[in-house]
Amino acid sequence: MPEEKKAASTPEEIVEATTIADIYRAAKQLEGITVKTELIHSDFFSETCGNEVYIKPENLQHTGAFKLRGAYNRISQLSDEEKKRGVITASAGNHAQGVAFAAQKLGVKAVICMPATTPILKVEATRSYGAEVVLHGDSFDDAYAHSLTLQKKHGYVYIHPFNDREVLLGQGTTALEIIDALKDVDAILVPIGGGGFASGVALATKLVNPGVKVIGVEPENAACMKAALDKSKIVTLKSSDTVADGCAVKTAGDLTFAFCRKYLDEIITVSEMEIMSSLLSLIEKHKLIAEGAGVLSLAALPKLPFHGKKVVAIVSGGNIDISTISALINKALIARGREFCFSVQLPDKPGQLLKVSQILADENANVIKLDHNQAKVTDSFKKVILEVTVETHNQEHIQRILKALEKNGFHDVEQIY
Amino acid sequence: MPEEKKAASTPEEIVEATTIADIYRAAKQLEGITVKTELIHSDFFSETCGNEVYIKPENLQHTGAFKLRGAYNRISQLSDEEKKRGVITASAGNHAQGVAFAAQKLGVKAVICMPATTPILKVEATRSYGAEVVLHGDSFDDAYAHSLTLQKKHGYVYIHPFNDREVLLGQGTTALEIIDALKDVDAILVPIGGGGFASGVALATKLVNPGVKVIGVEPENAACMKAALDKSKIVTLKSSDTVADGCAVKTAGDLTFAFCRKYLDEIITVSEMEIMSSLLSLIEKHKLIAEGAGVLSLAALPKLPFHGKKVVAIVSGGNIDISTISALINKALIARGREFCFSVQLPDKPGQLLKVSQILADENANVIKLDHNQAKVTDSFKKVILEVTVETHNQEHIQRILKALEKNGFHDVEQIY
Repeated sequence: MPEEKKAASTPEEIVEATTIADIYRAAKQLEGITVKTELIHSDFFSETCGNEVYIKPENLQHTGAFKLRGAYNRISQLSDEEKKRGVITASAGNHAQGVAFAAQKLGVKAVICMPATTPILKVEATRSYGAEVVLHGDSFDDAYAHSLTLQKKHGYVYIHPFNDREVLLGQGTTALEIIDALKDVDAILVPIGGGGFASGVALATKLVNPGVKVIGVEPENAACMKAALDKSKIVTLKSSDTVADGCAVKTAGDLTFAFCRKYLDEIITVSEMEIMSSLLSLIEKHKLIAEGAGVLSLAALPKLPFHGKKVVAIVSGGNIDISTISALINKALIARGREFCFSVQLPDKPGQLLKVSQILADENANVIKLDHNQAKVTDSFKKVILEVTVETHNQEHIQRILKALEKNGFHDVEQIY
Repeated sequence: MPEEKKAASTPEEIVEATTIADIYRAAKQLEGITVKTELIHSDFFSETCGNEVYIKPENLQHTGAFKLRGAYNRISQLSDEEKKRGVITASAGNHAQGVAFAAQKLGVKAVICMPATTPILKVEATRSYGAEVVLHGDSFDDAYAHSLTLQKKHGYVYIHPFNDREVLLGQGTTALEIIDALKDVDAILVPIGGGGFASGVALATKLVNPGVKVIGVEPENAACMKAALDKSKIVTLKSSDTVADGCAVKTAGDLTFAFCRKYLDEIITVSEMEIMSSLLSLIEKHKLIAEGAGVLSLAALPKLPFHGKKVVAIVSGGNIDISTISALINKALIARGREFCFSVQLPDKPGQLLKVSQILADENANVIKLDHNQAKVTDSFKKVILEVTVETHNQEHIQRILKALEKNGFHDVEQIY
């Protein structure tokens, strides 16, 4: 995306020139625009890590994510002439809604380019904030290229999702609210995609109270900022395939890299399973929906290198497609050992299904799905394959069922998931 | 469940004797125990009904539901001697966790009887608050009968889930918080199961400000309070089968009936589809999880007989099993026209699948599942049945697809759901 053109300043110069006054200016801009999301104490997540954990629920923010903080601050800083020209960006995610919402509040025209394959609901959500949505191409890259063309043609101001000082200053206001609400906070966990949120939060935290640790969290599969910090230079990952799609960024920004290098204490990475399991816990224990990227900081809690501290985990957003929730819940149930699917070869004679059913009933496993198929075994006409899906309590329960089947003479049991 | 024994007072006498001082006493008891859940303004739900709608999110209450308000107030009123004896109830739902939580806070032993078939997670949630859970029998009635036996044997105090003055006074504190937070509220919507919540909320509201309307909401399939009010006497429904399982009550309490008759303005009933659709909207628009009974008041919003008013819809609870969420989402997607499954007879010759695929692609319908089966048509060997499940936008989208299939010569299309 277009580079920042800040009077030829280097990223390092911009970092040095940015002060606490800039953060407070951004906070002033956002007054009455953003929700001051209230910290939620979590007994459950406290227990998982031996710290006192609070959730900062930015999924309950307007537009369902923190992104409008940065977008609003950025657009509010435009000159009257720039505001007249309007703004543009390419995004199919939270940034799109953030820019649309902010532009509407400020009376500025917003154009958002999205791939033509974007789910209609995301398109409509963005349009509902008054933005003009341009659908173009099959991929994000197509939509992005088109946004550059439109920018040049119409003279719109480009609003970068993360590699922009005003954007990251806006995101940083989240940290001011945290420190204001919990004066003796010891550490703040913040998710990292391109690094704008982490830059802003680390900057604001360290300038207000350098004693507070700021820890970034990335998906193992898309840890572009960790890779950059480890090598002391920006690198481009080969892939960024993660359920935390809001953080699926291959290359950190040069500005966000500079901010994170100066202000961020460390980065923790989390696995796909850890992300999905945290999402499930947030739903079960707090009745809150988040997107994959939204729960990164929760997933990192068990990996914290300290105990007995006051920790705020920022849940960054909740914009997850409803069918994706359903699919993620199913995956998470499997990850937690709450669903178990196996196949077993049965001699093709009466009473075998009854025998398996009895074992499952004895082990208190509720059958969800059953597939009894004679055709699946190719090497014998004397046997059938039974495929069973059951509800289970946890991995130990699954092991007990496997043992019971073995003990009762079913030796060809194969765990499908 | 055991009747209240209040110095031989009739329900009507109890209603008359209950004053605003009783409600404030309950609120005083709950200070520092319950969360004062904060109202959430809802643009989306406001638009669905032409009123200004706020959600009172009791799903974010401790234990995930309002029930601990009543349970705590009730147990706090026990004499020292009664507290020593301990309390008992039968419940597999929110009342179980409410009693367990309250008893633990007050240092009172709690015994909760549940059917042996209760999901292990509900059992564990209740145990996590220090209660003794007794699993007995296959149905709620079995567990209830057993709780009476144990009560007699051990002298425990019975804590009724709704038909109890101290319980409904506790629930009524919810209304005080609403009026305190939104001084010019015009109407409050409250779900009805046995009527304890509605009794308390109506009582508190009318005693504080008689100008505020209080509207109860029941599932069409379990509208025991509406039936009682319509006939001016308590009736027992034949069935109470509803996804709002927390409100699946066949017989209103005599005390709650008396309170609702005096203080409730009216009752709106909602269908199963309306309940599921509201649950989906709450997840999508507010990132909040609720149980079926929890969203009754949201489901009733489009049926309000007025516009331009300030309305608070109480979301009563969020304790829904994670696998149930997944199943409900799927059902709700179908109800909303977001998923569509149809079968079509194809001539068994090459190119037919391609033709259907082209139509679906042209209509922008994403195929989720495909079943191409030659064996399903019994009356002809020349045709095959194709069963297709696609993601759709809404009912109009489904109609467009059906028309396109018809137009292209596929006349035997059958809508499966």
